Amino acid sequence: MSDRKEFRDLASPERFHQAIESLDIASGTETVDIAEARGRVLAERVDADIDVPGFDRAAMDGYAVRARDTFGASEADPTLLAVVGTVHAGEEPTVSVGEGEAVEISTGAVMPDGADAVVMVERTTERDAPGDSGSGAGDDDADREVAIETSVTPGEHVMLAGADVAAGERALGPGTRLTASEVGLVSALGVAEVPVLARPRVAVVSTGDELVRPGEPLNSDAGQIHDVNTYAIAAGIEAAGGEPVVYPHVEDEADEMAATLERAAEECDLVLTSGSTSASAVDVVYRVVEERGELLLHGVAIKPGKPTIVGRFEDSAYVGLPGYPVSALSIFRTFVAPAIRSAAGLPPADRATVRGEMALEERYEAGRRRLLPVGLVEDSSGRTLVYPVDKGSGATTSLTEADGVVDVPADTSYLAAGEAVTVELFSPDVRAPSLFGVGEDDPVFSRVLDRLDHPRYLGRGTRPALRWLRDGVPDVVVTAGPVDDLDLATFDPEEGDADTDAAAADLDAFDLGGWTREWGLVVPAGNPDDISGLADLVDRDLSFVNRGTDSGLRTSLATAAADLADERGVDRHEVTGAIHGWDLAARAFESPARSVAAADADAGLGLRATAAKLGLGFVPLGIQRVRVLVAPDRVEKPAVQRLVAAVEAVDDAFDALEGFGSA
Amino acid sequence: MSDRKEFRDLASPERFHQAIESLDIASGTETVDIAEARGRVLAERVDADIDVPGFDRAAMDGYAVRARDTFGASEADPTLLAVVGTVHAGEEPTVSVGEGEAVEISTGAVMPDGADAVVMVERTTERDAPGDSGSGAGDDDADREVAIETSVTPGEHVMLAGADVAAGERALGPGTRLTASEVGLVSALGVAEVPVLARPRVAVVSTGDELVRPGEPLNSDAGQIHDVNTYAIAAGIEAAGGEPVVYPHVEDEADEMAATLERAAEECDLVLTSGSTSASAVDVVYRVVEERGELLLHGVAIKPGKPTIVGRFEDSAYVGLPGYPVSALSIFRTFVAPAIRSAAGLPPADRATVRGEMALEERYEAGRRRLLPVGLVEDSSGRTLVYPVDKGSGATTSLTEADGVVDVPADTSYLAAGEAVTVELFSPDVRAPSLFGVGEDDPVFSRVLDRLDHPRYLGRGTRPALRWLRDGVPDVVVTAGPVDDLDLATFDPEEGDADTDAAAADLDAFDLGGWTREWGLVVPAGNPDDISGLADLVDRDLSFVNRGTDSGLRTSLATAAADLADERGVDRHEVTGAIHGWDLAARAFESPARSVAAADADAGLGLRATAAKLGLGFVPLGIQRVRVLVAPDRVEKPAVQRLVAAVEAVDDAFDALEGFGSA
Repeated sequence: MSDRKEFRDLASPERFHQAIESLDIASGTETVDIAEARGRVLAERVDADIDVPGFDRAAMDGYAVRARDTFGASEADPTLLAVVGTVHAGEEPTVSVGEGEAVEISTGAVMPDGADAVVMVERTTERDAPGDSGSGAGDDDADREVAIETSVTPGEHVMLAGADVAAGERALGPGTRLTASEVGLVSALGVAEVPVLARPRVAVVSTGDELVRPGEPLNSDAGQIHDVNTYAIAAGIEAAGGEPVVYPHVEDEADEMAATLERAAEECDLVLTSGSTSASAVDVVYRVVEERGELLLHGVAIKPGKPTIVGRFEDSAYVGLPGYPVSALSIFRTFVAPAIRSAAGLPPADRATVRGEMALEERYEAGRRRLLPVGLVEDSSGRTLVYPVDKGSGATTSLTEADGVVDVPADTSYLAAGEAVTVELFSPDVRAPSLFGVGEDDPVFSRVLDRLDHPRYLGRGTRPALRWLRDGVPDVVVTAGPVDDLDLATFDPEEGDADTDAAAADLDAFDLGGWTREWGLVVPAGNPDDISGLADLVDRDLSFVNRGTDSGLRTSLATAAADLADERGVDRHEVTGAIHGWDLAARAFESPARSVAAADADAGLGLRATAAKLGLGFVPLGIQRVRVLVAPDRVEKPAVQRLVAAVEAVDDAFDALEGFGSA
Repeated sequence: MSDRKEFRDLASPERFHQAIESLDIASGTETVDIAEARGRVLAERVDADIDVPGFDRAAMDGYAVRARDTFGASEADPTLLAVVGTVHAGEEPTVSVGEGEAVEISTGAVMPDGADAVVMVERTTERDAPGDSGSGAGDDDADREVAIETSVTPGEHVMLAGADVAAGERALGPGTRLTASEVGLVSALGVAEVPVLARPRVAVVSTGDELVRPGEPLNSDAGQIHDVNTYAIAAGIEAAGGEPVVYPHVEDEADEMAATLERAAEECDLVLTSGSTSASAVDVVYRVVEERGELLLHGVAIKPGKPTIVGRFEDSAYVGLPGYPVSALSIFRTFVAPAIRSAAGLPPADRATVRGEMALEERYEAGRRRLLPVGLVEDSSGRTLVYPVDKGSGATTSLTEADGVVDVPADTSYLAAGEAVTVELFSPDVRAPSLFGVGEDDPVFSRVLDRLDHPRYLGRGTRPALRWLRDGVPDVVVTAGPVDDLDLATFDPEEGDADTDAAAADLDAFDLGGWTREWGLVVPAGNPDDISGLADLVDRDLSFVNRGTDSGLRTSLATAAADLADERGVDRHEVTGAIHGWDLAARAFESPARSVAAADADAGLGLRATAAKLGLGFVPLGIQRVRVLVAPDRVEKPAVQRLVAAVEAVDDAFDALEGFGSA
């Protein structure tokens, strides 16, 4: 019997927050050059050590004068002053200004002795002195005079020494975040290095025997997967103001785990592991922490994320995140990132929320508070619809297909369609996608999407897309199939139970047109089995990989199988039942072809374009239409208008792809 | 006569935007490791090359079974299955599941052949097989059996190969910004390097003979100042998604300027200069651009920022910013940062705005659109008040004392107090300071401020502070002086025209108490002139530096001078007129002492604490009270409550400072 352990006392999210806050993850202070100071947080007050400016300074280009000499001057009755010299910025004045005198001065220059104001150049006219006829250029100061056409008051257009910052003043307080403005002020004070809070160093340790770093090949038969959490969490740490320190991932073995945790605890302020926190027999991380560190909490009453650990290991804080990426990032965002921000001296992240209406109803098992990942879509009038994105916490696409979460209390088991909900966005700069589409995977449509700004498209297949369209969720759906698309939602050629009238009556979509694509059997290069059509799969001992019934490719194939059955005068199930792999449905449009490429099958359902892309052979079975349909209440959306233009210009895309053509 | 040029045709801000948009500052693409990819923007679509997961995967810890074997199982009537093996994550299964059999399985492990569902461990009880009595540990699989207490459907708790992402699917589109979630998805696809838009390289060249890098000493007599723009603008470039490239600043000399611009244009996508853009005789940058590059626009109809240049130089885009820091950063934020963001593939920055009421009236010269820098303060009820921060574009403190700008149209010359205005915040994370104070510079209060989170305090002196308090602007004011603080706003001991009754009646503030500080004459170390009091300044030939009349120190000194005049039976102006430097008023509380330290004066008005800090001598003249007053409508603000606690605990601060005591 195995020694599995279950979570008996799940901590409340509030207790979890408190436990993490009780850990000390601040990292002390350090000194950085101002060139590197942006975004950092001052650890100490910065007082001014010098006056800024350090001298009385001309604030305008013009003439430095004694203000009282200008009293009464006007454009009609200017006052003439002798120009006794010039001072540029960065020069020490060599003249002073006496009664009836002026000095030409540049913005930023030192006010010469005797002058107490500047007349801006626009209110003056300089000319050669009357006694100096004919010489032209007034290089010789002795010959210059200026007509002052306005009066100025003492101090006018002069910035006094210390007027910006005076020596001894408190310039910036501790805790100030350094943006361009503060970097400017610190520069003005002549400070080249500033004391800032050190970024908390956060170790990232992924655990699991099955993990392989991205970029390295996988052995899927042995259950290997790429390590998702390490770099995703490191990115989250960085965004929260911490400094991620990535360690090689460790296997589920106590001594190796302990050695890595010890090293990480020594080098970092906070150690984050992911994975290996559940209560199963092989999960060792929490036992290592329990035995050699201090386990504060194990298990939090929230979904996703239950198997989370808070504790200490050596002198470091420790949080053990669940292994599933969605759970790990959700717990990280909710509990860990705020603690890192706080230790980094940053204010709490903006928690932007959006109100919306549930587009679909949603039911759960009650009992645990739940952060339901949701996507957003706006209709033409700007109303926000909210749909659940629930591919499970094991799916990394749940991360990118969702815009935020709805916090569903533990005692709620049902959200009605149309119910108002508040969505906590993953970050304040999250926007609803400009366009939300669902439907068939199609290489041409992928290129259409590339021409739009910030669209979202879920390749769920034709039939689910039509159901979502009927429920009013997406802006656009892409269908593919042999018959009128509008019938596809209910037409099942494998069963022959089409209720086409009902389907067409239900759907009221705007058809943008589309294109055609050639489909058939993808076979090994050179077609070694000499397959010529569907009959070969029925009559010969060949292995086949199909697509799921959601796919328009499958519908076309089913129609072809029905035709073959009719031709032979047999029941359609006799045909499909004879194909080895008819029920072996791969999820995406390239998957069957890839099985063929990997020599796992003799033939797969697919597109000519896919066969060409993967260098495989192709046996054509037909041409199907791909259609782009827009929901009637979304036609006015700007992105839909851009989509219309992109679909009209789609012919460009055909050149790069085989087997596509205009509809 | 000099060859000054004036701006004759100022471009509209709209034309300016268009001119900058017409420049090409995009920087191509580059490939980065996913560890460095956060915040970057995908240059190309990323399609999935593999199925994720690559195998049918257990989604729960439990037992892999044939679903049909569990039909009808319940807690009351469990189904017994023989446990024929175990599969952990990262292992290749060595067993398959036949009828009546189960395999113990970990989350993430490969589903063994024959099994099509997982029963979660919580709904099972494993025990030794009945035939195997007494052996205890069930290490030998032959002896194990498990009671299944629930039925599962085919596929339950199994994630099929490709269910997350299927090979060939469009995973992320071009233009996607990579956050933790996208980094996670890219990791899952096994992609270790991603194609991203290169950050636009932006050269920063400050110009001006007077500039000295921060950290290097200044010669103020020669009009030198620290270079503020270089690092401030570099920080702004970084925040906008660009890569700043800092060049040594150049002097106002055409050949040097041209050489630096050529090098910068070669190395960067955009060259930014600051300074040297006005039309004065010595400003050469625009002539260099005019002669050797292409000048598109010179001068924009906005304040601050008029003297701005847009053009091209060699193959690079060029923008010449004004030299004044406030103007330079304002133009950078308004026109340049959006262009950098766009070239970096980032969406336009959030333009957060706040509605508020003008706290004070504000008048201008009409004629040019104006971005008026303003500060924000909230009253207890959350109403936002807006006050102008206008120290001039030469003042770097205008940058840090403002929270945003009010965009005032060219034809508006007056904003009334109470008028509703919209403030464009400098960034969406700008918050009104938690506490807004105005008043006397005081070393103890600086320490009090250090204990508050995000306060703002303007050391404008006692008398302006009381005027602002009466106008309802600040939360708190700090006063210092010899008489009842409430009278200070109108009491002028130099003129003896106190209207104390009127002042007291006007003010209705909550007095938090305060402390006392010793003030007097700061003299060189050892008091070489043997100064013993104010009479020495009157009677001997000693030079003195005073504070301005806004300061409470000046008020105390004026009172002492009035007392001395009374003592001698002379008019007070006879006493003050005899002091060399009575009218030489330094702005901040340490400035007179620093003049003494620099041997520029024999004595200065100041605090004992300042003399001690600077290692100078001190001649005491008296003790003054420092008071902290709270506006009655701000008492409930949380930060005011924290201030109350900090003022109560202020005695701590006295130990580190000489001459302070409890009031």
